[in-house]
Amino acid sequence: MSLRPSLDQPGFSAGKRSRLRRILHQHGLCNGTALFLPYDQGLEHGPRDFFANPAASDPAYIIRLAIEGRFNGIVLQIGLAEKFFWDYAGEVPLVLKLNGKTDIPPDANALSPLHANVEDAVRLGADAVGYTMYVGTPAQESDFEQFHRVREDAQRLGMPLIVWAYPRGSAIEAKGGKNSFYAVDYAARTASELGADIVKVNFPHPELRDGVKEPYRAEFSSQQAIDAVVRSANRTLLLVSGGERAGDEAMLEKARESMEAGATGLIWGRNVWQRQQHESLDFVARIQEILAKYPSDS
Amino acid sequence: MSLRPSLDQPGFSAGKRSRLRRILHQHGLCNGTALFLPYDQGLEHGPRDFFANPAASDPAYIIRLAIEGRFNGIVLQIGLAEKFFWDYAGEVPLVLKLNGKTDIPPDANALSPLHANVEDAVRLGADAVGYTMYVGTPAQESDFEQFHRVREDAQRLGMPLIVWAYPRGSAIEAKGGKNSFYAVDYAARTASELGADIVKVNFPHPELRDGVKEPYRAEFSSQQAIDAVVRSANRTLLLVSGGERAGDEAMLEKARESMEAGATGLIWGRNVWQRQQHESLDFVARIQEILAKYPSDS
Amino acid sequence: MSLRPSLDQPGFSAGKRSRLRRILHQHGLCNGTALFLPYDQGLEHGPRDFFANPAASDPAYIIRLAIEGRFNGIVLQIGLAEKFFWDYAGEVPLVLKLNGKTDIPPDANALSPLHANVEDAVRLGADAVGYTMYVGTPAQESDFEQFHRVREDAQRLGMPLIVWAYPRGSAIEAKGGKNSFYAVDYAARTASELGADIVKVNFPHPELRDGVKEPYRAEFSSQQAIDAVVRSANRTLLLVSGGERAGDEAMLEKARESMEAGATGLIWGRNVWQRQQHESLDFVARIQEILAKYPSDS
Amino acid sequence: MSLRPSLDQPGFSAGKRSRLRRILHQHGLCNGTALFLPYDQGLEHGPRDFFANPAASDPAYIIRLAIEGRFNGIVLQIGLAEKFFWDYAGEVPLVLKLNGKTDIPPDANALSPLHANVEDAVRLGADAVGYTMYVGTPAQESDFEQFHRVREDAQRLGMPLIVWAYPRGSAIEAKGGKNSFYAVDYAARTASELGADIVKVNFPHPELRDGVKEPYRAEFSSQQAIDAVVRSANRTLLLVSGGERAGDEAMLEKARESMEAGATGLIWGRNVWQRQQHESLDFVARIQEILAKYPSDS
Amino acid sequence: MSLRPSLDQPGFSAGKRSRLRRILHQHGLCNGTALFLPYDQGLEHGPRDFFANPAASDPAYIIRLAIEGRFNGIVLQIGLAEKFFWDYAGEVPLVLKLNGKTDIPPDANALSPLHANVEDAVRLGADAVGYTMYVGTPAQESDFEQFHRVREDAQRLGMPLIVWAYPRGSAIEAKGGKNSFYAVDYAARTASELGADIVKVNFPHPELRDGVKEPYRAEFSSQQAIDAVVRSANRTLLLVSGGERAGDEAMLEKARESMEAGATGLIWGRNVWQRQQHESLDFVARIQEILAKYPSDS
Repeated sequence: MSLRPSLDQPGFSAGKRSRLRRILHQHGLCNGTALFLPYDQGLEHGPRDFFANPAASDPAYIIRLAIEGRFNGIVLQIGLAEKFFWDYAGEVPLVLKLNGKTDIPPDANALSPLHANVEDAVRLGADAVGYTMYVGTPAQESDFEQFHRVREDAQRLGMPLIVWAYPRGSAIEAKGGKNSFYAVDYAARTASELGADIVKVNFPHPELRDGVKEPYRAEFSSQQAIDAVVRSANRTLLLVSGGERAGDEAMLEKARESMEAGATGLIWGRNVWQRQQHESLDFVARIQEILAKYPSDS
Repeated sequence: MSLRPSLDQPGFSAGKRSRLRRILHQHGLCNGTALFLPYDQGLEHGPRDFFANPAASDPAYIIRLAIEGRFNGIVLQIGLAEKFFWDYAGEVPLVLKLNGKTDIPPDANALSPLHANVEDAVRLGADAVGYTMYVGTPAQESDFEQFHRVREDAQRLGMPLIVWAYPRGSAIEAKGGKNSFYAVDYAARTASELGADIVKVNFPHPELRDGVKEPYRAEFSSQQAIDAVVRSANRTLLLVSGGERAGDEAMLEKARESMEAGATGLIWGRNVWQRQQHESLDFVARIQEILAKYPSDS
Repeated sequence: MSLRPSLDQPGFSAGKRSRLRRILHQHGLCNGTALFLPYDQGLEHGPRDFFANPAASDPAYIIRLAIEGRFNGIVLQIGLAEKFFWDYAGEVPLVLKLNGKTDIPPDANALSPLHANVEDAVRLGADAVGYTMYVGTPAQESDFEQFHRVREDAQRLGMPLIVWAYPRGSAIEAKGGKNSFYAVDYAARTASELGADIVKVNFPHPELRDGVKEPYRAEFSSQQAIDAVVRSANRTLLLVSGGERAGDEAMLEKARESMEAGATGLIWGRNVWQRQQHESLDFVARIQEILAKYPSDS
Repeated sequence: MSLRPSLDQPGFSAGKRSRLRRILHQHGLCNGTALFLPYDQGLEHGPRDFFANPAASDPAYIIRLAIEGRFNGIVLQIGLAEKFFWDYAGEVPLVLKLNGKTDIPPDANALSPLHANVEDAVRLGADAVGYTMYVGTPAQESDFEQFHRVREDAQRLGMPLIVWAYPRGSAIEAKGGKNSFYAVDYAARTASELGADIVKVNFPHPELRDGVKEPYRAEFSSQQAIDAVVRSANRTLLLVSGGERAGDEAMLEKARESMEAGATGLIWGRNVWQRQQHESLDFVARIQEILAKYPSDS
Repeated sequence: MSLRPSLDQPGFSAGKRSRLRRILHQHGLCNGTALFLPYDQGLEHGPRDFFANPAASDPAYIIRLAIEGRFNGIVLQIGLAEKFFWDYAGEVPLVLKLNGKTDIPPDANALSPLHANVEDAVRLGADAVGYTMYVGTPAQESDFEQFHRVREDAQRLGMPLIVWAYPRGSAIEAKGGKNSFYAVDYAARTASELGADIVKVNFPHPELRDGVKEPYRAEFSSQQAIDAVVRSANRTLLLVSGGERAGDEAMLEKARESMEAGATGLIWGRNVWQRQQHESLDFVARIQEILAKYPSDS
């Protein structure tokens, strides 16, 4: 994949590079691609996400699923990491999610406060940290200031920094919404400009055109859109998120287009664990068939 | 009680574990259950709570009640702890409540500021600290940032951290209110995700369905609801609060259901001390009969 | 006075106790009661308070009045303390008022910012510090956080902390106003819960019942009200403020009721110095006749 | 001038006293009076103030004017002080203005942020620092907190602190405006209570009575008003500002009344430099004739 | 150019002077003029700016353009500087842009948060830092406080500080808009008063008169306007920005007028790179013909 950024960049310190190689080349398919299992929905949406498969309410079940499914990493908030990761330490890389919020109050001025520091990630043996940046939120001053401190700590400690680059807030709603090509493209670029090592984005929807800026009002295929988003992220590795559970075939098609565009991988939660365990593992196998087609040496 | 989390978790440091064993196995019934006496109502509601039993206005009276009733801990704000705990130090564990507020201004953006630090708790010989988190408040950024600092200090000093996980604020009012199954379940999970050792919740009311998220609109028994809440808290020990004084039999039934679900214990104030002393002690004896049926080794 | 808290409490450190003994037993009547002269009205209300007696505009005049009238302490803001106290240092105890504000902007979200620290009080040889807490203000988070830092410093340095516990703000106005029994009782309790050594309150008005919480809607005499307020303050010493100038006999009757209830003393400014000097001293003599009837050994 | 505060006050540390003597007794008329040249209008109002005399746009021109006119000090913001003062260091005392703002956004919640610290003043060889306090602004909490830090630094470093005590904001507008006797009197007192060494005020206008507090609704001459303002400032040295350019005779009459009342001097900018250089110097000579009549020894 | 400020000012420390000489005399035309290539539009406007020339989306392309076009510096945000500058370090001076924001939320209270510190610039081998100050924004307190910290760091580390002095916000919109002579003139002065070494301004439009302050309502030519702006910046070096892409001849005429007025140079991005590479280089050559006519020795 010539478009996919490699780990051979002078911008990665030795610490970041060794941890990223562990994630991308010593776990999962060990071929430079990545499949992450995010598990912060209990905080972001509440336990309602677990009603489809009550077993998924148990963090231990999810971590075991990540191990059995050969994921490249499991994403946890500090509380669950403290209580459950020790039991499985060394079996699957931990991505410590540093910030998060409930979805109870309105999202117009969305801001995701910090619950843990990069130092916590080091102490817990994590191989990366995650930060949700609400691109376009009216609270962007606070968001960027908070991210600034996280970026500095991540750099000082050689910890890879994954940015959940999520368009959000009242102004985004008025300009095409959070899944428009315009919004996703801008979000990917913002993460890259501000210092993300990896950026997680929603799959762009070029058909969402109401209120978007001029050049995005033209016709684009979804492949053109995800290609552009990967270009906007330039040397920042890109992951495509899954979002709410959708049809398997549509999801796999998105995966194919994303990898074709030069994405490094996927980060899918509810589409994986909102079903019985064996169905989860079957679905993961189908995802990995796709990832296997996009190896890279570094 | 297979569902009740034990103290044999690697997530508890030696400091937290030794203090929790003191509370759960060396006080009260010494059987791993807990009955706490909270006494911060003078700040949270004002002296009006003491009119039913004027003696209860005196902190010394309340601490003696906790000792005579073999409570597992007494909960005080810093001012009363400084003035009254010395006289009884070593006779009953102290839970230093770190934050609190008056109920005079409106609750729409509720936030409970810190009055003391974990260091104060160490200095006073307390065995745990308490923190009120208003889950769902529009002020959640400030609340979570404040909690972040408390969690770090508690971890550094090996001090068990009890979170009063209280749904609160304008958005909660619009989504079923603070006692709905939806809100209580989300609150328990939030505390666990963010790093509570123990979480205190209101007893869930599944019949409060107006405005709650989809899966909570179905029919649930109160036993099903409290079972789910305990599951959402996973390895976080759970205490059920008493709230305003209600009928004794209804309260005791709640206690039974809570313990059956896997709760570690109860934290009841007004239901205990808003009556004459001998009546308080009689009622405590009936609570302890229930707790005695749910022993655990660790 | 069995109800009046003594200085023989383990909650007072050696530093606090030695300074309080200096104030209560080595100045004024030396009998454990207190009469303080507050002089921060130039900031709180502006120079308009001095038009009744222009000499009172001069801080030196006021400090000399405090010395001649054998007051237990003079209360000054940092600027006047720096400029004027040196001349009289050692002749009358200084209470350094740490915060204050003008009354020009509206009071709906009242908050009183800090102008000096406890360290300034130590440096100036003060024997106590004063802090205005606006109980019930919508800005209570900021107020309590600020107080938290002051309490810690006062504790670390052994400096007695007097809290001006003033109900204030839009919510108080809607619930009976700042002088209702409900509000004053709650304010006294709040100061005690949060760590005041001494609390200064307005004399409670049980006849102000509009909007107050239930139990305060009953009939109470003013003696019953002040008795309850002293009880709510428990081991916190209580001072009753004078407020705007009123009739002498009514004021003296309040003084009597307050001391009878167990107050430690009075803190009266405008009622004292808004008249000619000899009249001020005559009035002080009448106050001290009352205080003389309420001696205590410690 | 018996009413004018002297430098022989124990409230002045050795550092403050030596710098004040340099300003008041070793520059200008060397007689204890002061004439300052303020030059922060480029920030406070923008370059529009320089159109009347374009040469005045050049800081070097203004500093030379201060030297030729034998001013007691020149007032500059940090940027101009860094760029221009070195050339003239030692020839005229520098007052480093620490805060300032543009007049572009509305003034309803006026607050003037810090651009430099007292340490910068020490490093640049300044003999005093200036701070604008917007007395009565709804942002008074932030203003007072900011001033608090400045006062502490000034005290620690022995640097005289001049407070521009400016009534400002929506509440002041509703209570007689920023030039009323009520507002100016309150502002002078506030600066003194909070720790100013020198206070700069507008000349009071007793005829502005709409909305002012009671005692200020009576008739006062301008001499009575400025007398009262000097009294309210007590031991704080007082400077009267010039404001917008007005008629020379009216300005000189204000100067006379101010000095008669006990002011230490004047701080006039636009009235001086919004004319040709020789006219400026002629006008300065007339001001100094007045100042020469009010010498003091210390 | 007698009006152009030289580097022989005592206000420049050795560190600032050596870095400025590197930029102005050892790169570009090496004649004391400057042409900078700004590349933060991906953050400020999003990837939409790259649709005119998709190659411009790639930071490596842009840096190579700066090198081939003999620019005096390339301006990057921290993320792109970290990822791309190493490859070209030493070939073109780096200006690290310290703050920035997206243009998604409304601009009424514009504030540009910090993403990097001056220390980052030192570590990356940058020769200057850039800071966007929104002159006239209602958020000016936060902006100025943030700038204050940056100025101190820049001074401590000898790093030249370029201020993007951009009139912005609701009050500016009501007073002639961000490009009026009034607004640009005030912005240049503000940067100089607050400590900029170099100020970047929009070219002033004297014909925008609606709502501007009095003296700006008169007729001025664009040459008169830019002359005045350079004078308002006094010893602060001035750069004129390009803004949105416009006609080449009009742009070059602006360049001529700016240099004639005493500007040090230009900082043009979209006008340069929103066309094919060879066209970019041709246009740059025409700009440099103009700059070549305005050499200075220091």
